[in-house]
Amino acid sequence: TRARALGLAPGIFTPGRHNAITDVEGVKVGQVTISEGDSLRTGVTAIVPHGGDLFRDRVPAALHVGNGFGKLLGVTQLRELGEIETPIVLTCTLCIWQAGDALAQWMLARPENAGVRSINPVVGETNDGQLNATRARPGIGAAVQRALASATDGPVMEGSVGAGHGTVMFGWKGGIGTSSRVLPATLGGFRIGVLVQGNYGGVLQMMGAPIGQQLGRYAFQRDVAPANNRSPGDAGAEHGDGSCMIVIATDAPILSRNLERLAARAVMGLARTGSSASNGSGDYVLAFSTASKVRRNPDAVVNTNEELGNDQMSALFQAVTEATEEALYNALLMATPVSSRSSRVNPLPVDSVRLLLRARGIR
Amino acid sequence: TRARALGLAPGIFTPGRHNAITDVEGVKVGQVTISEGDSLRTGVTAIVPHGGDLFRDRVPAALHVGNGFGKLLGVTQLRELGEIETPIVLTCTLCIWQAGDALAQWMLARPENAGVRSINPVVGETNDGQLNATRARPGIGAAVQRALASATDGPVMEGSVGAGHGTVMFGWKGGIGTSSRVLPATLGGFRIGVLVQGNYGGVLQMMGAPIGQQLGRYAFQRDVAPANNRSPGDAGAEHGDGSCMIVIATDAPILSRNLERLAARAVMGLARTGSSASNGSGDYVLAFSTASKVRRNPDAVVNTNEELGNDQMSALFQAVTEATEEALYNALLMATPVSSRSSRVNPLPVDSVRLLLRARGIR
Amino acid sequence: TRARALGLAPGIFTPGRHNAITDVEGVKVGQVTISEGDSLRTGVTAIVPHGGDLFRDRVPAALHVGNGFGKLLGVTQLRELGEIETPIVLTCTLCIWQAGDALAQWMLARPENAGVRSINPVVGETNDGQLNATRARPGIGAAVQRALASATDGPVMEGSVGAGHGTVMFGWKGGIGTSSRVLPATLGGFRIGVLVQGNYGGVLQMMGAPIGQQLGRYAFQRDVAPANNRSPGDAGAEHGDGSCMIVIATDAPILSRNLERLAARAVMGLARTGSSASNGSGDYVLAFSTASKVRRNPDAVVNTNEELGNDQMSALFQAVTEATEEALYNALLMATPVSSRSSRVNPLPVDSVRLLLRARGIR
Amino acid sequence: TRARALGLAPGIFTPGRHNAITDVEGVKVGQVTISEGDSLRTGVTAIVPHGGDLFRDRVPAALHVGNGFGKLLGVTQLRELGEIETPIVLTCTLCIWQAGDALAQWMLARPENAGVRSINPVVGETNDGQLNATRARPGIGAAVQRALASATDGPVMEGSVGAGHGTVMFGWKGGIGTSSRVLPATLGGFRIGVLVQGNYGGVLQMMGAPIGQQLGRYAFQRDVAPANNRSPGDAGAEHGDGSCMIVIATDAPILSRNLERLAARAVMGLARTGSSASNGSGDYVLAFSTASKVRRNPDAVVNTNEELGNDQMSALFQAVTEATEEALYNALLMATPVSSRSSRVNPLPVDSVRLLLRARGIR
Repeated sequence: TRARALGLAPGIFTPGRHNAITDVEGVKVGQVTISEGDSLRTGVTAIVPHGGDLFRDRVPAALHVGNGFGKLLGVTQLRELGEIETPIVLTCTLCIWQAGDALAQWMLARPENAGVRSINPVVGETNDGQLNATRARPGIGAAVQRALASATDGPVMEGSVGAGHGTVMFGWKGGIGTSSRVLPATLGGFRIGVLVQGNYGGVLQMMGAPIGQQLGRYAFQRDVAPANNRSPGDAGAEHGDGSCMIVIATDAPILSRNLERLAARAVMGLARTGSSASNGSGDYVLAFSTASKVRRNPDAVVNTNEELGNDQMSALFQAVTEATEEALYNALLMATPVSSRSSRVNPLPVDSVRLLLRARGIR
Repeated sequence: TRARALGLAPGIFTPGRHNAITDVEGVKVGQVTISEGDSLRTGVTAIVPHGGDLFRDRVPAALHVGNGFGKLLGVTQLRELGEIETPIVLTCTLCIWQAGDALAQWMLARPENAGVRSINPVVGETNDGQLNATRARPGIGAAVQRALASATDGPVMEGSVGAGHGTVMFGWKGGIGTSSRVLPATLGGFRIGVLVQGNYGGVLQMMGAPIGQQLGRYAFQRDVAPANNRSPGDAGAEHGDGSCMIVIATDAPILSRNLERLAARAVMGLARTGSSASNGSGDYVLAFSTASKVRRNPDAVVNTNEELGNDQMSALFQAVTEATEEALYNALLMATPVSSRSSRVNPLPVDSVRLLLRARGIR
Repeated sequence: TRARALGLAPGIFTPGRHNAITDVEGVKVGQVTISEGDSLRTGVTAIVPHGGDLFRDRVPAALHVGNGFGKLLGVTQLRELGEIETPIVLTCTLCIWQAGDALAQWMLARPENAGVRSINPVVGETNDGQLNATRARPGIGAAVQRALASATDGPVMEGSVGAGHGTVMFGWKGGIGTSSRVLPATLGGFRIGVLVQGNYGGVLQMMGAPIGQQLGRYAFQRDVAPANNRSPGDAGAEHGDGSCMIVIATDAPILSRNLERLAARAVMGLARTGSSASNGSGDYVLAFSTASKVRRNPDAVVNTNEELGNDQMSALFQAVTEATEEALYNALLMATPVSSRSSRVNPLPVDSVRLLLRARGIR
Repeated sequence: TRARALGLAPGIFTPGRHNAITDVEGVKVGQVTISEGDSLRTGVTAIVPHGGDLFRDRVPAALHVGNGFGKLLGVTQLRELGEIETPIVLTCTLCIWQAGDALAQWMLARPENAGVRSINPVVGETNDGQLNATRARPGIGAAVQRALASATDGPVMEGSVGAGHGTVMFGWKGGIGTSSRVLPATLGGFRIGVLVQGNYGGVLQMMGAPIGQQLGRYAFQRDVAPANNRSPGDAGAEHGDGSCMIVIATDAPILSRNLERLAARAVMGLARTGSSASNGSGDYVLAFSTASKVRRNPDAVVNTNEELGNDQMSALFQAVTEATEEALYNALLMATPVSSRSSRVNPLPVDSVRLLLRARGIR
């Protein structure tokens, strides 16, 4: 079930049609789940900013690093030039370099890029090593190509799919989640969408309800709780480690400086789910604007932008905080059990959660 | 009333004796409230890291900028050298340069500093211009001297005092708040304290309870709510603007890199109160370690440090997130009404809040 | 004498009419030299970006920190918003907070700013404590007001004037210097001007000529040279400490991201004079664009910018590197002797320098 | 010929035995040159910080980004944790993801790393696309393995070797260069070594001698020089584009904060060769300390460091500026001609350079 069906509708703004990153027009998502034998449990999720020539019709972009224990590719050029020139791909930690090579290859192979000799693939990862035989490092290249080729708009698959197939959140099965917001017309009417690859821990709370503590599974419980208070299987939750990749798309016309500010607010949504961004977490937020008024061609001598004023950002900050929180709940609640030779990870017990939320006045 | 008396005890760790920044041994706080005539409503809050020679027995320190719309003094040297060499002073926006001069003067006047020709005062501010005739810019220097001279350990005054005398949070009276956590012995037993100068807005929530919406006062309500749903006096809450200064002290032995990571987590506590860090907000977090094992003398050729490993930070990250959230609740709940020629700002109606929290299962 | 008269004309581009920051149309400079009794030797230099309403017709701006051992005011807001809203003022280290207060006051007192309750003065400093009784901290406020009131376009006074009255470079008298470049029409024809407040050390070289070593005065000479090789008065040069404030103005239409990149290149010009940015140096570069196409009003919902493409920046990078190097030579060569109770600092011996340069093929 | 044989001995400190990065004890370099058929002209250069367990006996490290137009791998984790856990590998732009995968594989395959599920390879690149058929992207993995396996101490091959086989500097053949400095005992006696992969442009100067202009090949010459002043083959030099990877090793005990400051000074050495870091340049500096007193084990609860005081850094800043400048001259002067189907690039004409330097008083 999606979060909203349980009453988990954080904030004050309303979602778009699909309550997904694809509510931002032109944005497409493609996912490939890799489940092979008893040990490979990983995948790829690709976010394509628009359907045109990504290398020449570039979107402004920014990165916020919540906690930088991760291998994210494409960091410095994205920041220096304030833009991205490829889709964004998410995958598993040790898959990331093969995925980067495949994304570069996919871009280079496009006819219009026949003369291109430099490309900056942006690839993020989280570590699905609890479920996935990550050291085996399956040839992820083909999966990247298929994810990109299959990207579509409309509803986005959530839970244990794509790059979320093997991820774990707060000791329960995590995965891909998404959500969106549409600003009121008085605030510009812009759309903003968030997609997350959730693989982190902490002390789970849902709109403040202390679900993690109530279900007996949360970070540091061995240090603060009596021994008889622990549930079986809490080991994975103990240190709150893991990572969270967050991708933000918006049709608001914003350049990189304000996109970076926007990206920073996604961590505020992350915080509301009970994360405190543990040492081992790679918590990254990538944000881009699809607005035609801020696109730029690398060969242009002058770019004409119509950019929102700084003071217009506040409503977008509120919106992205809300949508991130909801996307993370969706990742948890849409997850399905995944098992492998090394582990079995179950999702949150939705019926219990529903009762706990109701007891909290959330329904 | 303090937050904990209402059941607002966020997180899993326990507070120290005073539930205050002064639970970190050696840390002292001094406050001076300025209330003159019908228009001056401001003040000074000073945090003194230890009772020794601050210029020569320096504490490692770091700054995290949540949103940089503010005038904070001392930024670049603090970051370059990874340390502070003065107390930290908080005051009003347009007071900040006079306060910086006074803090410099106070340091230079100490006998041991007779030969000092360079000093880096660290002074933060929030804008109390709704209540305070800030353009009058009263000679704040004397107040800085008095705050420093009167600094003590033990309980800390909260609410509409010191640098919080004229501040506003979510449309209600805000001010100074503080809280602390003590880690379990298995996690090192360290103490961490937080002091906030709250002057910001957003959509107030308290441990998830949507108090702002329930009381009809929150950012963007004119854009999302029917006209008849607004309470009188909501004007101040409309844009979520304002600022929040957060100061963290810990006795855990940490150098500037990990202190900066620690500081970043305070924003996660801020987020849990309903802030999304609006454009106009100056949200800054200063963190320092009082541990003798990481002190450094500027003339030392070699400094010997015993520093926590990176992986030990996670528990401190959790603790600071909790303590910041609670300190902010304390700032709101301990505030008393303040009025001036220009405005009157009332605190949260505590009885209503208590009922709303109880309805949410918080007590 | 100015550098160019000695053959010191670094680079490939040509200067503007005055070879000064004022070659960028609209930029004005005002300076007040404070020389009182036998101990006060300091001053103020103000750079005014344009003659209009600086608070509402804002110029994009950026800061690069070469080495952050300094007290620069206005840092975080400048970066967060990507703009400045006041003139830039330079002064002495311990004067900076009084100067910040005075600049704020000057802005607030303008009729159009009667309702302003937040202002972000940008003030830089270097430490003239060798010559100046800096702890006396003369009321610098009046000097700031006079510098601002007297700002003019046209030629700029260089050497031991304004904020450079008490500064020292490489053990010789330093001060204010300026230079400019005009890009060829094929590269856009833009103007770029640099003004420096030079107060630093190192191993002086002028277009590669090892003047510092040849004149027997350079950093670390006690460590590397035989005792008999030292000139009297080399003490001040020993650690290479000091600071350098660099201000860049351009009429090229650039927003903050590319202005920050531009600012970073000024350090490359600084490097060519023999600095390696010692620990104690506060080396800051502020850059702003006066182009009407990138101005922004803080109340604008949308700002329309015509901004240079990233690839157009390279020629500006070259130009600012050149102009910074030349401005620093001007600061040295235009300096006149200054003495006080505490010290006497002579300028470079120009005749010797001329001979040394000629021997190097520079004339 | 190496630079020093031509009189190019920048600075005041003396080199170590090999005048190479390997003068820092324990540091090893391995290089593999790939020259296949008429189109592949690339290679790999690996720098191994020490001979022990790099994953558990970690060296503190830092990154400075001079200009971020590049694909450098491992950025954010290096910065977050302040350390590296693998060797550093340099290669060609489009090779970088395969090289990252190979370096990860090499680390994972070591017996002590059998349980490792997360690794952060640090790989840098420059674009050798003028000479190399970079889009062909030869399987670079094997070359990475061989470079690592063959790493040795002692003299380092320079010029058109390893990752410098296909690189171009200022329109002439560039490549790998190295240099070192040993501080006097009075300044601590530390060793610092620099290795560069030079592939950039600008207006070449050697210790100030305007070699680029004198030889008629420099950036923007079409814009500033009469048509008859251009030499054939200057096309490659026109925009000053390219990149420069710089790796610094030192045995001085320094943690990441001061290593980052040290890294920033390498750009000052780069500047002295005539670079102004053009838009298209990826100019990165990686620095690490091999000192046993600052090593750290990721599982340690507490790390005891003996770290240099801030003020001790100045001499190291001077040393790294010098060594970087000299390493870049070595890269140019040791280069040999390389030709391929797409281009032929000759080195600087050393005899002409010698004459031009002598005319400048350098010999």
